[in-house]
Amino acid sequence: MRDVYVVGIGQTEAGEHWDRSLRDLGVDAMLAALQDAGVERADALYVGNMLAGELAAQAHLGTLLADWSGLGNIEAARVEAADASGAAALRMGYLAVASGALDLVLVCGVEKMTDADEESADQAWSYGMDGEYEASQGLSVPAVAGLLMRRYMHEFGVQREAFAPFAVNAHCNGVNNPCAMFRRPISVDAYIGSGMIADPVGMFDVAPLCDGAAAVLLCPGDRADELAAKPVHVRASAVATDRLALHSRADPLSLRAAYMSSQMAYAQAGVGPADIGLFELHDSFSVMAALSLEACGFAQPGHGTDLALDGEIGLRGRIPISTMGGLKARGHPIGATGIYQIVELVKQLRGEAGANQVECSLGMAQSLGGSGATAITHILEA
Amino acid sequence: MRDVYVVGIGQTEAGEHWDRSLRDLGVDAMLAALQDAGVERADALYVGNMLAGELAAQAHLGTLLADWSGLGNIEAARVEAADASGAAALRMGYLAVASGALDLVLVCGVEKMTDADEESADQAWSYGMDGEYEASQGLSVPAVAGLLMRRYMHEFGVQREAFAPFAVNAHCNGVNNPCAMFRRPISVDAYIGSGMIADPVGMFDVAPLCDGAAAVLLCPGDRADELAAKPVHVRASAVATDRLALHSRADPLSLRAAYMSSQMAYAQAGVGPADIGLFELHDSFSVMAALSLEACGFAQPGHGTDLALDGEIGLRGRIPISTMGGLKARGHPIGATGIYQIVELVKQLRGEAGANQVECSLGMAQSLGGSGATAITHILEA
Repeated sequence: MRDVYVVGIGQTEAGEHWDRSLRDLGVDAMLAALQDAGVERADALYVGNMLAGELAAQAHLGTLLADWSGLGNIEAARVEAADASGAAALRMGYLAVASGALDLVLVCGVEKMTDADEESADQAWSYGMDGEYEASQGLSVPAVAGLLMRRYMHEFGVQREAFAPFAVNAHCNGVNNPCAMFRRPISVDAYIGSGMIADPVGMFDVAPLCDGAAAVLLCPGDRADELAAKPVHVRASAVATDRLALHSRADPLSLRAAYMSSQMAYAQAGVGPADIGLFELHDSFSVMAALSLEACGFAQPGHGTDLALDGEIGLRGRIPISTMGGLKARGHPIGATGIYQIVELVKQLRGEAGANQVECSLGMAQSLGGSGATAITHILEA
Repeated sequence: MRDVYVVGIGQTEAGEHWDRSLRDLGVDAMLAALQDAGVERADALYVGNMLAGELAAQAHLGTLLADWSGLGNIEAARVEAADASGAAALRMGYLAVASGALDLVLVCGVEKMTDADEESADQAWSYGMDGEYEASQGLSVPAVAGLLMRRYMHEFGVQREAFAPFAVNAHCNGVNNPCAMFRRPISVDAYIGSGMIADPVGMFDVAPLCDGAAAVLLCPGDRADELAAKPVHVRASAVATDRLALHSRADPLSLRAAYMSSQMAYAQAGVGPADIGLFELHDSFSVMAALSLEACGFAQPGHGTDLALDGEIGLRGRIPISTMGGLKARGHPIGATGIYQIVELVKQLRGEAGANQVECSLGMAQSLGGSGATAITHILEA
């Protein structure tokens, strides 16, 4: 297998884009990533997107974006794994470059949520769960997170307030990210006083669905130095899955897919949790942040919230998370999120994270699909 | 790059399945492919599907099918490229095995069209075209084929009857395929007398949307002989794209993506059209069959229909096509079709095609997405 490097990154602001369409957003991010690497063409384009068909009556997004970006006639496809669609597209790009079949592969994550009414968007989001046994029974994505959070509080004897640091940390970090949807800090009191979405999941426990696009350009090791001043090495790429429906899992509080995919990634890179300098995790809900930290070996089961309360998830903590705002403050344009995480990780590893800079040479990103049924982990090195 | 082999195949009947759900169909085909290879597990599952979200409120199909097949915790993702979704998933499986990252990759194409009303299914099919410039203006997929067929007749001076052999050949071959939706021969008179769908596209010019699933198991060369009595070598895998909207193309009658992807495939395999013993092409419409034959070098522009009229597309002709019924008679369960083509090609190359057996050692399959905007070509060798 060939080594794979990230040599270009691009992103649009995450948020509500009333003047840019789905295809505009994708093309903006793609062209920015190409420009970052100083090239005008790629050999292939893989697009991570979950809901363009459901919300915008547009499938075939790989070919659409290859066409509209002027990349002309190149290989293209769309990859989907619910909320982990962006990371799933990156995985395919990684395999394509690693195989030797393709040299320059552009991977774009894009989602346009605000053109649909909020109810439609929420409903479509639930298509990532088991339609016949969960969504069709009235369960929404926040409702499943509510079940998980309630169970976590019961099982480990923690109060709702214990999750506040996840939201506070994310919003604090989002302030300095010009592409973040929310750039204002929030207080613990604001967290505690916020309205309920799906009790005990409050407004500040859930990442906002929004529009956005992010892109990365991949290349093999022998071209990395030519295309980037600071190429970033993809040291590991690993995917694992779990039972799709929450009720099918032996222990709902153990994210088995996250555990397995992080273990595979550690093995590929020959490292362990202690070697990871920052972790862009999938904080679609506060409870998912806690569970991811536990599944990936940064905290014992039931102690993810302690890690947060101890300040260890901050920029100067033991394992900084959501360093550019995370899903919570940057926003969660579903299929784009996995690529935003990589763009942010690359900025950190290049030393381009500004006021939020974390000193480290090895970082990890993890995307979850559904309620943790798909977990995709990448480890990157400066 | 490692050599990649097909060592297992499985398929359900294509047609109207009122007693099997989307997930049932997928699992049936997947388990059949595993059983064919005599294994119980795979390292990954890639699912080709276009419309489960739009028609069944179910995304995240890779993980759903990995879960329901009992394959447990393996890597999974869904790949989409409109009508070429199955072939796009195969492409990803090919790259994964070729890279050395994964050994046994199961690729499943599945679609369930009949649970939605016919109008919804037809509308969702149009999401493979350019939504903002084609579908939203009222163009349906058959309407675009109608424009192409009318233009072909005008440009090359042929009558509608010249397309009859494509339908007659497909239905003749479908008779002997137990998995085909239509197993009755049709006459040229029936073709001529059939009702119009989108003039000049008649009922026998269009492949029927339906339910179905097909699966193949891929492995690297060093495991092929252990897993199959007659492993089939994937000699080439190539993807190219074109402008998505028909009106954007310089010459609508020249399928540039099909031309480019077949040329890349020929180059990879070191062969030319004359070496190909049979061609499972994408006869979603009669005119697409003619255009594919021309784009891939089997006929000069405007002479695809002559090749058919001369009987050269039959089982004993120069380039047999749709040997198990093609999309026209086997049926077109959209995201599954690309894998049905591979299953049928493997059956031919193994010598298991029964009354429809074509004597050859090298065959080609090509899937088209939208009105030819994506073309994915695979060349397989016995």
